[in-house]
Amino acid sequence: MTQDSFIASFTVEDLRFPTSLTGDGTDANNRECDYSAAYCTLRTNLGEVGYGLTFTIGRGNDIVCAAVEQVAGKLMNMKTAELFSAAGLGRMWNYLLSDPQLRWIGPEKGVIHIATAAVVNAVWDMYARHLKKPLWQVVAEFTPEEFVAATTFRYITDMITPEEALALLKEKEAGKAERLAKLKAEGYPAYTTSVGWFGYPDEKVARLTREAIAQGFNHFKMKVGADVAMDQRRLALIRSIIDDPKECEGRPVPSAESLVGKNAGPTGSVLMIDSNQVWDVREAIDYVKALKDANPWFIEEPTAPDDILGHAEIRKQLKPYKIGVATGEHAHNRMVFKQLLAAKAIDVCQIDSCRLAGVNEILGVLLMAAKKGVPVCPHAGGVGLTNYVVHLSIIDYLCVSGTKERNVLEYVDHLHEHFTNPPSINSHGYYNIPSDPTEGYSIGMHEASKAAYVYPNGSYWTNDHAAARLVAIKNGYIKP
Amino acid sequence: MTQDSFIASFTVEDLRFPTSLTGDGTDANNRECDYSAAYCTLRTNLGEVGYGLTFTIGRGNDIVCAAVEQVAGKLMNMKTAELFSAAGLGRMWNYLLSDPQLRWIGPEKGVIHIATAAVVNAVWDMYARHLKKPLWQVVAEFTPEEFVAATTFRYITDMITPEEALALLKEKEAGKAERLAKLKAEGYPAYTTSVGWFGYPDEKVARLTREAIAQGFNHFKMKVGADVAMDQRRLALIRSIIDDPKECEGRPVPSAESLVGKNAGPTGSVLMIDSNQVWDVREAIDYVKALKDANPWFIEEPTAPDDILGHAEIRKQLKPYKIGVATGEHAHNRMVFKQLLAAKAIDVCQIDSCRLAGVNEILGVLLMAAKKGVPVCPHAGGVGLTNYVVHLSIIDYLCVSGTKERNVLEYVDHLHEHFTNPPSINSHGYYNIPSDPTEGYSIGMHEASKAAYVYPNGSYWTNDHAAARLVAIKNGYIKP
Repeated sequence: MTQDSFIASFTVEDLRFPTSLTGDGTDANNRECDYSAAYCTLRTNLGEVGYGLTFTIGRGNDIVCAAVEQVAGKLMNMKTAELFSAAGLGRMWNYLLSDPQLRWIGPEKGVIHIATAAVVNAVWDMYARHLKKPLWQVVAEFTPEEFVAATTFRYITDMITPEEALALLKEKEAGKAERLAKLKAEGYPAYTTSVGWFGYPDEKVARLTREAIAQGFNHFKMKVGADVAMDQRRLALIRSIIDDPKECEGRPVPSAESLVGKNAGPTGSVLMIDSNQVWDVREAIDYVKALKDANPWFIEEPTAPDDILGHAEIRKQLKPYKIGVATGEHAHNRMVFKQLLAAKAIDVCQIDSCRLAGVNEILGVLLMAAKKGVPVCPHAGGVGLTNYVVHLSIIDYLCVSGTKERNVLEYVDHLHEHFTNPPSINSHGYYNIPSDPTEGYSIGMHEASKAAYVYPNGSYWTNDHAAARLVAIKNGYIKP
Repeated sequence: MTQDSFIASFTVEDLRFPTSLTGDGTDANNRECDYSAAYCTLRTNLGEVGYGLTFTIGRGNDIVCAAVEQVAGKLMNMKTAELFSAAGLGRMWNYLLSDPQLRWIGPEKGVIHIATAAVVNAVWDMYARHLKKPLWQVVAEFTPEEFVAATTFRYITDMITPEEALALLKEKEAGKAERLAKLKAEGYPAYTTSVGWFGYPDEKVARLTREAIAQGFNHFKMKVGADVAMDQRRLALIRSIIDDPKECEGRPVPSAESLVGKNAGPTGSVLMIDSNQVWDVREAIDYVKALKDANPWFIEEPTAPDDILGHAEIRKQLKPYKIGVATGEHAHNRMVFKQLLAAKAIDVCQIDSCRLAGVNEILGVLLMAAKKGVPVCPHAGGVGLTNYVVHLSIIDYLCVSGTKERNVLEYVDHLHEHFTNPPSINSHGYYNIPSDPTEGYSIGMHEASKAAYVYPNGSYWTNDHAAARLVAIKNGYIKP
């Protein structure tokens, strides 16, 4: 059936949403941003489609689109029969990543790598749609051998060999059916970042914190890093709400297991902080010590994402204060995660669904984290990341780590209205499990959204209303 | 005088040279490449110019050009009075690197970082031309305070603070005049990579080795990594020539000091090997052990350039065989070098003049390497790299490390004919010191070369002769 099918065309769209108007997504390092996506659509000659995107925050999204064009172009005329299997997907990844000339402008990092993520994810999406299963289910139904064949091992075999991975996966086959039943009954645990963006005034933070409690959340993350006194005040404000039994009345009681090592308060609420790379190593240590009274579970991205040894030093210095270290949303490839794990630099592994070059590379990181016993809590938010990550956490739980009790998956409720299968949260503050057989990797968008926000020719940007002009000028897309 | 001067325009040119026709530049990871440059020209309203380029190997050079456009655009209308000082250059770097939206698609790595290098180097070139001094001289004449003001310290202060750097630079002020005199008399020591490219047959390797000896060279580098037996054969071939007293008759005798720890043979010849990232960590260790009879000084780029801990492990395992580790041409920012030095992962620090984001970031790496006592031997070759690096090694010698005895600077004699001030070698195999007051950073190109090789509209590419078509099809620029 698929013998005659081949990749016949692709399109790349530069989508930009004017989030800089609202302050959503602001943090210590990113005070102005328009959430954007380099959006790739693959089509076969028989009309099958696959969607993939990579996320940026505005300017430069066009550069990423130019890179997506070159990477996607390498798939033209490729037979889907060669792509549509675990081993085929593994070969596809190696093929896309081994172009020596495109490799030079990375290698395996930055623009070319995040562009590759959009294309790789589009192929996986197409395969899942072809099988009429959500992406997580496709991977969960792989045999251990197939899982290994689809995984990227280059440069990480000193941490985990394919043989070790196979043994780990086979061991986890036991109990998989029970875990799946549990997952469908409970959902996947989530935390919210929406309460504490940088640009929000205190009143908005307090209101959003109460709303999050009402949604069932017991993990809350706040952005820090510009001013110690302000951070102390905002953290105390959030703590005063989430630690108050009256404020939390009626919220489901979290299990003791899910709170181990997280500095939970009296109501079972957990607080995390995130500084988005704003400090040098020594600054990070001093600054976070000054926030110790808020008892955060971890500090996220305390310094440059490339600084493995710096993160290890920060973790060591904060250990006496029982504050952990999390990072990964800007960790640019599996080799960085390998080293973060080897150097014992992190308490929580925050993979990004499209900074790593798509599913194949992520499977390798899940395997390494499981081997080292470090929980994986993927980065969400932006455009579409929240859609992607629920699949990844489910795969981790069912096939790799076998646990979701210690984990929480970031949930950010922005821009979901643009997707045909948006992520959602149940009444306990848990992710619902994607179940639409046509949703693939859940990254399909409404045509109307694309028509409005494609840059520069979408109706939002061309109608030239005051807000659009303001955003375009402020962010330097056009001259005043 | 400069009060009324401002950056008034810029151009970006996609230059591609059809080196894939000859096998120049081939190695285990890069078997087909057209040496290319994203070439940036800045112009002031008064007609002053500054040139900067970044190097790629073909496909994707257009993506880098698109990024150069965005970075260079940020300099428009900036007054040269604000740029033309050490502190002004320091502020310029911080300004270009702190764009949150462009930062997202790095951060500080890959396409956006190498594009920034072209722009930063163009500003330094413009300043040097303005002062009518070669770039090295501009920096050598900085006071220690000015040197520090021009240097990038963000994220490396846990390795070296500005205060420590100042103390180091002040200490090196003593003897600077003597070092300058010595440099002008002797030149700067060099080694050659041109003998052992991957694509060359044995006969060509033997011939080029003899030619290199005749040029005065006593350090030779060979590409390895595809086949142990072939590598053993080629290494034995080179050793048989460079260790033969008769073959080396008449070549200047190297000083004992310059050979310390380098596994020099009986004639004072040193051999290095380079595998361009082709191995996983364990493979690297096993493979290089199999080449131990050739007594190489170091193995260059044994594995992924991001793998700091992997390099440290390789170095540790090769220590009993007295084989060192060198890397850096793909180390994507100063944080990687900081960690390579902290983890004792390298014997030789190979900075790249335009993979790091230009002079400011490089000064920081020179300071860290000097603090740790690791010699800096910059990466050269490609298009223009050889032009750049002689300036950097001179700066290192005069201001920072104070030594050139243990160092050797890569010398590759490709494509020099396209530059107005090409690098050159004296009769002892030493780099001549750039001395033309109008050459700036030595990266100006002949207009005729740009007219021929600009892609896709240069005369080489548009004349549609058979060779050009062959290259363009083979490298996927056009469809057959």
